[in-house]
Amino acid sequence: MSSGSVAILGLGPGDPAQRTPEVEAALAVATDLIGYFPYVDRIPDRPGLRRHASDNRVELDRARHALQLAAVGARVAVVSGGDAGVFAMASAVFEAVEHGEASWRALDIQVLPGISAMFAAAARVGAPLGHDFCAISLSDNLKPWAVIEQRLRAVAVAGFVIALYNPLSRARPWQLGAALELLRQALPGDVPVVFATAVTRPDERITILPLRDADPALADMRTLVMIGSAATRVLERPGGMRPWVYSPRGIASS
Amino acid sequence: MSSGSVAILGLGPGDPAQRTPEVEAALAVATDLIGYFPYVDRIPDRPGLRRHASDNRVELDRARHALQLAAVGARVAVVSGGDAGVFAMASAVFEAVEHGEASWRALDIQVLPGISAMFAAAARVGAPLGHDFCAISLSDNLKPWAVIEQRLRAVAVAGFVIALYNPLSRARPWQLGAALELLRQALPGDVPVVFATAVTRPDERITILPLRDADPALADMRTLVMIGSAATRVLERPGGMRPWVYSPRGIASS
Repeated sequence: MSSGSVAILGLGPGDPAQRTPEVEAALAVATDLIGYFPYVDRIPDRPGLRRHASDNRVELDRARHALQLAAVGARVAVVSGGDAGVFAMASAVFEAVEHGEASWRALDIQVLPGISAMFAAAARVGAPLGHDFCAISLSDNLKPWAVIEQRLRAVAVAGFVIALYNPLSRARPWQLGAALELLRQALPGDVPVVFATAVTRPDERITILPLRDADPALADMRTLVMIGSAATRVLERPGGMRPWVYSPRGIASS
Repeated sequence: MSSGSVAILGLGPGDPAQRTPEVEAALAVATDLIGYFPYVDRIPDRPGLRRHASDNRVELDRARHALQLAAVGARVAVVSGGDAGVFAMASAVFEAVEHGEASWRALDIQVLPGISAMFAAAARVGAPLGHDFCAISLSDNLKPWAVIEQRLRAVAVAGFVIALYNPLSRARPWQLGAALELLRQALPGDVPVVFATAVTRPDERITILPLRDADPALADMRTLVMIGSAATRVLERPGGMRPWVYSPRGIASS
């Protein structure tokens, strides 16, 4: 019987002050660190810690590697940014378990939540996710673009605030522009859109614009884009302070 | 010029190991603590800390109180469970700002994110929110029930995993049953449903059932209910261990 384990961790958006003690404790006892290299790079070296950083888009290989190491006794920490369960490594690990060796189902696997990019970005500008909301990955590497379009239309019409993950990359340059164009057909042009890049990091950049003026060039791979509902409000502030954005809790009965 | 401030905090689901250092630091310097009494009760007493615990459903009064205190120099911490931006106090505070005194717009107001009930519950069972997902409050105190029905139908048909907040209360006994019935008409009967109550607390209780058998009696005010999509998987485990639930990252192109 092996004493190995896999802890699938969310490191939060960047600032260690937004990382939970539970996650810190798991990192402190890990023998092996697995993840996309910018996340692995956030964890300081220490004796006894082996690092296995890998490139983007090899999530399943990474997941199998973690399970193989745990099966022979390693205490593996699989690291993601934000929350590990949100368009990150947790799903990939369970996918590897399902299609992998039967013995992997008996492994000690724990998922430790983190502050998601979505909630960190929302907190920075106010409370844009203050009523019903959804999260959609704009990456069509793993699902057909037609499904993404259909989902965007459904939630925009139904009044959800929308958080867009993976808005664009070098290999996916046009998808965010197409999504914004589609949303302009379903929502009023003055709905606020928030572009939140590298939240809590030194190069944090936040832009708030009406949907009619939202420009995909404001996003990069580290940007979380939030599109308000028709009810979302922008509160102007004095003295050039950045406005607050919030979505009221209620809808009046008609 | 007042030096008062409002920090709107998410305390996480319960276990302090899931509370961020940023939130702990804000609690340590607060002069006044405002919130629904079970959340205020989580914070230990200390000299110099005034406590203003209130009952449920007085969010706007509470928000105004926080702003009034900050306007005369208090360092106020407004506490919510989970994440303050998710069906919690952040939206109420900005609503009070919008409709309150003009000077409140110049106040130092910060929102500090927390581990949401949704992500804490998801982590406990695997990765049920591993693809596109949404969060809906089932409370019809603040929006018409017809809007809730329309939103549930839209996201179920479009393939989102659904997290239901505020599934029921003494004053709202039938809404969860009605929601599950509606979802049974839109989704396969074997879609997994997770009832996660009091996650990370001593009386944590988790039940996983197919939608056809999901029983509203499994929920109380502290329950987060997650309804899978047709793609969500249940991984059985040996030796009576609780199965894992996860939603695969991708959808094959057809």
